[in-house]
Amino acid sequence: MLYLIDQTALPQKKKYIQCRTHGDVAHAIKNMTVRGAPAIGVAAAYGLVLGAAEYTGNDIENFINHIDTVAEMLKETRPTAVNLFWAIQRMLDVVRDNRGKPVSDIKDIMLNEANTMAQEDAEVNRRIGRWGQELLKDGDVILTHCNAGALATVDYGTALGVIRAAHEAGKNISVFADETRPYLQGARLTVWELMEDGIPVTLITDNMAGYFMKNGTITAVIVGADRIAANGDVANKIGTYSIAVLAKENNIPFYVAAPISTLDLSLESGQYIPIEERDEQEVTHIGGIRIAPYGVKVANPAFDITPHTYITSIITELGVVYPPYSENLKNLIKNK
Amino acid sequence: MLYLIDQTALPQKKKYIQCRTHGDVAHAIKNMTVRGAPAIGVAAAYGLVLGAAEYTGNDIENFINHIDTVAEMLKETRPTAVNLFWAIQRMLDVVRDNRGKPVSDIKDIMLNEANTMAQEDAEVNRRIGRWGQELLKDGDVILTHCNAGALATVDYGTALGVIRAAHEAGKNISVFADETRPYLQGARLTVWELMEDGIPVTLITDNMAGYFMKNGTITAVIVGADRIAANGDVANKIGTYSIAVLAKENNIPFYVAAPISTLDLSLESGQYIPIEERDEQEVTHIGGIRIAPYGVKVANPAFDITPHTYITSIITELGVVYPPYSENLKNLIKNK
Repeated sequence: MLYLIDQTALPQKKKYIQCRTHGDVAHAIKNMTVRGAPAIGVAAAYGLVLGAAEYTGNDIENFINHIDTVAEMLKETRPTAVNLFWAIQRMLDVVRDNRGKPVSDIKDIMLNEANTMAQEDAEVNRRIGRWGQELLKDGDVILTHCNAGALATVDYGTALGVIRAAHEAGKNISVFADETRPYLQGARLTVWELMEDGIPVTLITDNMAGYFMKNGTITAVIVGADRIAANGDVANKIGTYSIAVLAKENNIPFYVAAPISTLDLSLESGQYIPIEERDEQEVTHIGGIRIAPYGVKVANPAFDITPHTYITSIITELGVVYPPYSENLKNLIKNK
Repeated sequence: MLYLIDQTALPQKKKYIQCRTHGDVAHAIKNMTVRGAPAIGVAAAYGLVLGAAEYTGNDIENFINHIDTVAEMLKETRPTAVNLFWAIQRMLDVVRDNRGKPVSDIKDIMLNEANTMAQEDAEVNRRIGRWGQELLKDGDVILTHCNAGALATVDYGTALGVIRAAHEAGKNISVFADETRPYLQGARLTVWELMEDGIPVTLITDNMAGYFMKNGTITAVIVGADRIAANGDVANKIGTYSIAVLAKENNIPFYVAAPISTLDLSLESGQYIPIEERDEQEVTHIGGIRIAPYGVKVANPAFDITPHTYITSIITELGVVYPPYSENLKNLIKNK
């Protein structure tokens, strides 16, 4: 059984949902009960553990076929965040590496691997925080978009991890949080996390970010990432590209904080990253209330690509990466 | 009695509110039952007519004092759109120009003047439309922000007037409408107006505009204005500045459509235009539903300033104005 915080109910209610089957996990990822690139990766790993438990036979070939089917279903939930595919592949590799063992042993190994990934994710975020907080200085006012916090990961967060680490280091910083339409991850999740931690935060609508950059209030931007191509182009929540352009126009540093599991060096540039188009009800309704006329045509791309030229640096658990990214991201992985 | 469409109820309900007193009109402007720079100007003119009717004496000095008090109350409703002050001043000038006449005559003259202003506004928008539509070509996909439509004016609209005129001229154009948080004028009003007119429209959240500029979908931007300074800097709905920066970055023309009553040549640049800060509930609630945690700090500037360097041209009823704006806006008025 996997317990997940139901992020669709926050901040009004903190409730947990139970996933008994891999289908429950797939559903939770698809409907955004669990969201955030690292969090859905780890959730999918546990989805495979539940999928393994559903297999009651002893035949290793049949077991592997079953696991492959489960993996396919989990992969089809959301297309953009690469952590999902990374986590599933890591679990499939573990299964294949241990195919000489009895099925029951492999099930235990899979659970261990998922637990390890969860532990690693929390530790990775602490390391991202430690590297990243050195980029922030006393008095910084940091814009963040969407939620790259504890809720988007196993714990601590990527972008919010950097902010937490700076706060813990005693730096006097504060945050502006974009509400992040259509799903309001900023208003519902980021603001809630920061208030819980006692980090000063001001909520704004997405279209106010430029105003507060131009008038000098915002001094740095930190966001997470759903996938980073070999050249440093970053897929992240819709609206990230606009913020990056505004940051450059106003000479404000634009940082991306992400674990190396977010890197997809198989893709030369961001143009090859698939962008998920989500249901139009996310745009036409808020909290179940219809805000637009019936029959209106809607577009709802959930992510956009920020070209690497707008990115000051990428903060990973292995260190801060600067341009040229094509070279430096490759070296980062090589020297791991 | 002044009847106004209650814009807070659209698109769910088309209902009218009755204003019996100048206080009712002031309230309707303040709470955005009536909104849009040209519309609130004309509404304020009728507010003065109602204020005049409230005066039952015959003494001209007392009457003028009373009208001045009414004018002050109406001026204090909203600070950014200059059309409000322009319309009130025009009415006050008419009162003073006719101070030799009996009070009852002046009341009639005021009603005539308000009616003239309403008629003029509709005609001005048609002329803006005629000039502006020449800038649009077959196949254009036009981004607009907020609502600069019939609802924001007496009829036809400024930015939407240009779009309507292009559509009426048989050009095959379509529109992307930003929803325009926090007040959702795009989702509620612009989409509704365009659907009524059969002009193809796609609703997006504000933070998607950059995505659709970068991928080549959007080919032009047209917005209205609440105040234009002598150097061409434009105050308009929050988010306009960000769109202008994104348009420039993507080599997309950025047009402002506004009547010359929106010009405030007394201000050298946009930095002197007061920016209204509105109630935080507009951000924390949508349709009466709370979306953010209790106690969250909120910023809610209702407008921003787009520097003239981002503006391709300003479309007025007297023609299209190009840079250098300091020179060409002055000449426009001089040659009127």
